[in-house]
Amino acid sequence: MTRYQQLASLLSERIIQGLYREGEKLPSVRTLSQEHGVSISTVQQTYQLLEQQRLITAQPRSGYFVAPQKAPPPVPAASRPVQRPVEVTQWDQVYTLLEASKDPQIVSFGGGFPDASQPSLQPLWRELNRLIRQQPVEILNYDELAGNCELRSEIARLMLDSGSVVTGDDLIITSGCHNALSLALLAICKPGDIIAVESPAYYGTMQLLRSLGLKAIEIPTDPQSGLSVEALELALGQWPIKGVIVVPNCNNPLGFIMPEPRKRAIISLAQQHDIVIFEDDIYGDLATDYPRPATIHSLDIDGRVMLCSSFTKTIAPGLRIGWIAPGRYYDRLLQMKYAVSGTNVPATQLATLAFIRGGHYYPHVRRMRQIYLRNMETYTNWLLEYFPDGICVTRPTGGFMLWVELPPQVDMVCVASKLSQMKIQVAPGSLFSASGKHRNCLRINCALSPDEKYRKVMERLGETIRQAME
Amino acid sequence: MTRYQQLASLLSERIIQGLYREGEKLPSVRTLSQEHGVSISTVQQTYQLLEQQRLITAQPRSGYFVAPQKAPPPVPAASRPVQRPVEVTQWDQVYTLLEASKDPQIVSFGGGFPDASQPSLQPLWRELNRLIRQQPVEILNYDELAGNCELRSEIARLMLDSGSVVTGDDLIITSGCHNALSLALLAICKPGDIIAVESPAYYGTMQLLRSLGLKAIEIPTDPQSGLSVEALELALGQWPIKGVIVVPNCNNPLGFIMPEPRKRAIISLAQQHDIVIFEDDIYGDLATDYPRPATIHSLDIDGRVMLCSSFTKTIAPGLRIGWIAPGRYYDRLLQMKYAVSGTNVPATQLATLAFIRGGHYYPHVRRMRQIYLRNMETYTNWLLEYFPDGICVTRPTGGFMLWVELPPQVDMVCVASKLSQMKIQVAPGSLFSASGKHRNCLRINCALSPDEKYRKVMERLGETIRQAME
Repeated sequence: MTRYQQLASLLSERIIQGLYREGEKLPSVRTLSQEHGVSISTVQQTYQLLEQQRLITAQPRSGYFVAPQKAPPPVPAASRPVQRPVEVTQWDQVYTLLEASKDPQIVSFGGGFPDASQPSLQPLWRELNRLIRQQPVEILNYDELAGNCELRSEIARLMLDSGSVVTGDDLIITSGCHNALSLALLAICKPGDIIAVESPAYYGTMQLLRSLGLKAIEIPTDPQSGLSVEALELALGQWPIKGVIVVPNCNNPLGFIMPEPRKRAIISLAQQHDIVIFEDDIYGDLATDYPRPATIHSLDIDGRVMLCSSFTKTIAPGLRIGWIAPGRYYDRLLQMKYAVSGTNVPATQLATLAFIRGGHYYPHVRRMRQIYLRNMETYTNWLLEYFPDGICVTRPTGGFMLWVELPPQVDMVCVASKLSQMKIQVAPGSLFSASGKHRNCLRINCALSPDEKYRKVMERLGETIRQAME
Repeated sequence: MTRYQQLASLLSERIIQGLYREGEKLPSVRTLSQEHGVSISTVQQTYQLLEQQRLITAQPRSGYFVAPQKAPPPVPAASRPVQRPVEVTQWDQVYTLLEASKDPQIVSFGGGFPDASQPSLQPLWRELNRLIRQQPVEILNYDELAGNCELRSEIARLMLDSGSVVTGDDLIITSGCHNALSLALLAICKPGDIIAVESPAYYGTMQLLRSLGLKAIEIPTDPQSGLSVEALELALGQWPIKGVIVVPNCNNPLGFIMPEPRKRAIISLAQQHDIVIFEDDIYGDLATDYPRPATIHSLDIDGRVMLCSSFTKTIAPGLRIGWIAPGRYYDRLLQMKYAVSGTNVPATQLATLAFIRGGHYYPHVRRMRQIYLRNMETYTNWLLEYFPDGICVTRPTGGFMLWVELPPQVDMVCVASKLSQMKIQVAPGSLFSASGKHRNCLRINCALSPDEKYRKVMERLGETIRQAME
């Protein structure tokens, strides 16, 4: 972060905290320059950035003022998906999305990558460097099947924050959270089985169901409180459902944190109907609440929750380190890992172990939480400014995704293909549905630091959507 | 390698090449010391090592002589497995084997790890070091779904040696060869399908079939020429077989290289019956023949061969870099990779790319071929000396595995459990069979450099087997 970005971050925090109120005049460029011991041009850059972020406005010859806060857009209503098991489609669209990420010229709002450019990740590089210089034999050899034993213990310790009491022996390292979920499904299901999912649900999960020949039944989901327990109960009474996949904390794509009573209700429903809960906690540590919200896994008493998570969003995707706490299915999971995935890369596990032991994990995650929260505020402001009236936007309490619902006549699949010609890539809502619902929605990745470039892209995005509405 | 090991390696090569004949006197310790400019004690260590390897004998007061070459043990006869599809079992034994590798005190002849301690791997460490210091952003980000594009091109170039003409775009990087095979089976098969396999076949492959709910039909296999085409044809006429898994080059565990006419016969049989060939070439580059033998994939004309391979045995397991050339099933494979495994670790791919581009791959593999060949000769000599009469031993033309057939009354499963109490771990033959055949066989990993410690272990192994026969 450069100096002007640091100063901007400080000021935006103060505005958000209400230390500078709406309409209030901000310190002059000269005053701020003296107060913080920075150059005039740095302060000017700072104010320019805050202006772009729509936090302040410039009034010629009188200075900078806190911008009037627009009312936040309404949150989308709960989804109402088709209430029967369907086969997942949409692979072609997902493939297009993946292909686009190869082209460095494309601005990609559709992917799920975090911001891995922050200085709080420097210790990871240092640890990698130290490790390679020491040349431990483990790096070239096969890893233990369950994954590095010491790393598993550290993960177990981190999991205490979410209420889960496990030891390293209860965990299996995987190649990311998605790989964990895939092994869990492979261990439990056979082709044709029905799995309940949130609606909308992450497109990677949907494609996983598709590839394994599983059917999805989409359950109505509220953008503020999550999966409808009543609807799940109805579905369980009607169909032979094998399990349910939930992302109860910092949901992808909706950003909600499911209230604890609802988490408990899902557990008891699962017990009643003897189904498996596949819990995806990949964004859980990025919740803005303190202490972080409990997992459903932490409320489990008979080992039926298989908790899947990873360091992909909290540290970096390139590590490929995820894990699973498979409860009573431990043996099946380990067998499936041996059969399908094999062991993991030792080098990135050892570096991550050193990163956590060195005390770098918490400061990094705390920092990222604040950055992502601020990013989402900026992007929401841009949405209000550039998108047509009548949009609904989620108000995430963690993670870095926004879900936008546009007027019903907008077909984001068509818009997305127009945008791709302009080298802008978005994830249309239909990817998040087995039955092609949510066509008037899109998910926006706010991990991309909201600078002038992205402001302009958002402006063009809004224009393109407006044109599509005409 | 220390100086005395280098000298021993030089002399053993000359003995094997026939430059020193059976019974011939070797240079005196003093002469050798002067010739090679090494100390007397180094030469003494050299001769001691060669004595342990049974290449020379010491005659008190007259010096060292080339040991009389015992007739090599006979090769085992072709296998005669059960001729119907069966479900694979034996997971518990495989699990015991895997668990054992965690204990550093255990001498593990049962695993499949290569020798990753040779100096010709130093450039890999250098490249890793350079890479980490440069901190390229790719290391922390998601990799391309098909794997690093430049590495794929390099692999395509290496594959030319095996006769396969592909480009990087025809390849998909996987987390090792086993992961490649698992994705191939997932993409093609559904539970209950029948897959033909060699008998014996690698236990990892067997467990893969088991975990995916596939049935195995074991095809008679000759330790010198491979899978019986006639038996495969018979089986294809009788059962709805989906595909056949073959390891035609440096077979694991038998070490043969399938003659080219037989490779062609398998291809035409596959065309005739419209089945898929899953070819495992993981040891192919370790063949002692020059040029290396062709893959079945190189003879394929309609894209029905899915070639799986990796750098696990040729460079190091800890890289977790394999690949697949999935032919006509490319799209299905890529989808399955997205669904089940996800992307790979960029760091080890980039380091391997630099290792290959730096010209280090060929010299390393050439070196390892010679080392493994010599190791297998030493281990064969030890088998002749310490094991009961009447054993048959394979004569591999590549790789680093020996397959030993003991008299029929020996039950290696019982012997293995006795051995494990002595901290010696072996892979009993029954692991390599779906129907528990080959109980009187074992596979020995000769990647372990044959020094005094391992000689003693082989001696104890022989003793334990003799006791079991009484």
